[in-house]
Amino acid sequence: MTRYKLTLEYDGTPYVGWQVQENGLSIQTVIEQAARNFCQEAVDIVGSGRTDTGVHALAQVAHVDLEKATTGTQLREALNFHLKNKGIAVLAAEVANSEFHARFSATKRHYVYKIICRRPPLVLMKNRALHVNVPLDVPAMERAAQHLIGPHDFTSFRATSCQANSPEKTLDMIRFEIVNSQFSDFQELRIHVSAQSFLHNMVRILVGTLVQVGKGRWNDQDILEILQAKDRTAAGPTAPAHGLYLARVEYN
Amino acid sequence: MTRYKLTLEYDGTPYVGWQVQENGLSIQTVIEQAARNFCQEAVDIVGSGRTDTGVHALAQVAHVDLEKATTGTQLREALNFHLKNKGIAVLAAEVANSEFHARFSATKRHYVYKIICRRPPLVLMKNRALHVNVPLDVPAMERAAQHLIGPHDFTSFRATSCQANSPEKTLDMIRFEIVNSQFSDFQELRIHVSAQSFLHNMVRILVGTLVQVGKGRWNDQDILEILQAKDRTAAGPTAPAHGLYLARVEYN
Repeated sequence: MTRYKLTLEYDGTPYVGWQVQENGLSIQTVIEQAARNFCQEAVDIVGSGRTDTGVHALAQVAHVDLEKATTGTQLREALNFHLKNKGIAVLAAEVANSEFHARFSATKRHYVYKIICRRPPLVLMKNRALHVNVPLDVPAMERAAQHLIGPHDFTSFRATSCQANSPEKTLDMIRFEIVNSQFSDFQELRIHVSAQSFLHNMVRILVGTLVQVGKGRWNDQDILEILQAKDRTAAGPTAPAHGLYLARVEYN
Repeated sequence: MTRYKLTLEYDGTPYVGWQVQENGLSIQTVIEQAARNFCQEAVDIVGSGRTDTGVHALAQVAHVDLEKATTGTQLREALNFHLKNKGIAVLAAEVANSEFHARFSATKRHYVYKIICRRPPLVLMKNRALHVNVPLDVPAMERAAQHLIGPHDFTSFRATSCQANSPEKTLDMIRFEIVNSQFSDFQELRIHVSAQSFLHNMVRILVGTLVQVGKGRWNDQDILEILQAKDRTAAGPTAPAHGLYLARVEYN
C-alpha cells in the first residue's frame, strides 16, 4: 500500500461539491471512479476539506492509498486520462509519507473570492466570479475586514447547519487585490482569505457581509457589532459559491 | 434613424462565428434577434470584422441603425436583457455619428492569443486558451516574430479560402506577455497582435507557426523563409480558435 498526495484543479459548476452526496455527482466520487478504472481496486480519496456545490479549486489537496504498483507521474497521467472532459485535472501526484493526511496534516488553507463590478452581465467569467452591478467601496471593505483578523468566535459567520464543535477560529489574513480581468476591461476584486481551518460557509458569509460594506449599507463599526452578536442572522447573505476558489493548502 | 455603436463581449464557443451562416447560429444573428425583440423593426448589425467559429471577443465593435426612439443606456440594458444566458453582453451602446462605420472606420484591430503550457489538461481555462503540454521557448518566439513586423506579403499566413484582394498587410505589433494565470499556478503566455486589418486566419496561422518555433522545430531564419515562400503550406498549422480573442478595435 502506498500513499499518494494529489493536487487537483476543478470547475465546481456541474458538481454537488467535493463530498459524496445522495442528490448528485460529487468531485470525490468522480476521482474515485477514475482511480478505480486505473487500479481495479477499492479506492477512498480523502480531501483537505469539503468544498460546497459550485465552489472551484485551483489546488485542492487529497490523499489516496493504492495497492497497485505505480509512480506519481504515471498516476497523474492515468487519472487525467480517465478524468477527460469531467472538469477535473490532477496537477500533481506524488508519493507521500504514510503519516501524511490531506485533512489532518493541513496547517493552512487559502481561499480566493473573485468579484467583478460592472453593469453588464458576465460572459467569459460567468460561473467564475460574483457579478456585482454597482461599484464597491473597497477601502471601506478593507477597513471593516480588519476587525475579523485574529482569533474570534465566528458564530455570526457560520452556516446554521455547521457541525464544527467550536465556533472559535483564527483568521490569519484577509487581503484585497484589484487586478485587470483577463476577460474584460473591467477590474476584478479578489479577496484572499487564509486560516488553518474555517467554519462551514465562513468565507462566503464573510464575503457576503463585506459586500454590504462595499455597497455602503454597513460600516466597519457594524462589522464589529455583527461579530460580537454571535448570531448568524446579524451578518450578511452567504455569497454565491461560483466566486469562491480553494486556492492552496499548506502542510509542514 | 439613429446610428448606435455597440461594444460587445462574447464567448465564441457555442457559435459558428460572428457572421450569419447556414450551418448554425451566429453571434450577429442572436444580437439582431435581441434588437428586434426590443425595437420591433428590421435590424442589420454590422461588425468591425468577422470572428471565426469559437473565437471570443473582449470588445468587438458593431453598429446598428434604429428607428425606435431610445438612448445608449436604454439600448444596452434592453439588449442585455434579451441576450441573457446567450454568452453575449453589450458592454457599451452609444449614439454614433451617421458617418461612423464599424468596419470601414476602424483604424486598428487588436487581438490577443492565450496559451497555457502545462502537462495536465486545462479545466478552468478550457475553451479559453490553447493548451500546449510542453514548455515553449518564448525568447525564440519573440526573435522569430520580429521578422513579421511591418508591411509584408502575408500569403503564407492566410487561409487558402481568404477572399481579400491583396495579401499585403502591415503588422504593427507582436508583443509577448507572460502572466500568472487566473486559474492555476501555471503561467499563461499572451501574444498580442495589432494591425489595421488582417487576412483570414492570419493571427491563428502566425500563432500556429510561432508555436513551432517555441517547440524548437523552427528558428527565426525559418520564419523569414516561410514569409518569403508566399505559400500557405510553408507555414505552421492554424492555431485553434478557442485561444483567440478580438481584444479592441480603434477608431479615429
